[in-house]
Amino acid sequence: MTTVDIALLDVVAVAGGVLILSGWVHQIIKAYKTKSLRDVSWYLTMFIGAGSVLWITYGVHIWDVYIIGTNVAGITLMVTVILMKRKYDKMARRPPGPRLK
Amino acid sequence: MTTVDIALLDVVAVAGGVLILSGWVHQIIKAYKTKSLRDVSWYLTMFIGAGSVLWITYGVHIWDVYIIGTNVAGITLMVTVILMKRKYDKMARRPPGPRLK
Repeated sequence: MTTVDIALLDVVAVAGGVLILSGWVHQIIKAYKTKSLRDVSWYLTMFIGAGSVLWITYGVHIWDVYIIGTNVAGITLMVTVILMKRKYDKMARRPPGPRLK
Repeated sequence: MTTVDIALLDVVAVAGGVLILSGWVHQIIKAYKTKSLRDVSWYLTMFIGAGSVLWITYGVHIWDVYIIGTNVAGITLMVTVILMKRKYDKMARRPPGPRLK
């Protein structure tokens, strides 16, 4: 592969990672606005988090910075979604009306 | 890397891919039961689909079957989620009561 090919490949990998991550950023923004993540499956967030850990292991071994970078960022976003879902699901279960201290 | 390392690495990559994909399978099953994907962001599904296309391009160029396999399966699941979300969001917008033919 020529240096141009490699540079092009770098752009493709980075663009792929950025697209996937920005999808999750938008999901977080949507959840923050609607205060609801009820339709998002727990298993989805936890399995993606766990899968990302394995992909980081794989990426480190073959020393592929795109795999490592995308999945480290992916885990950060997944932990955010998990914390938000826990909070909003709890809020949804609480009976409406003022909270009695 | 010894052959054992490589075999171990294969297992890690496949396990990572299977975990992420099974997270989406569970999301599809949950959506099918609840008939709702309102909380799931459109951008999430479309950006992950587009990002997966780029990752397949990357995987083909460096000839990494795990990247290719995970992302081909990922796109299939994403198209499924998109079609389901389109259907359920439409159903949610329809006024309740019998459909007048």
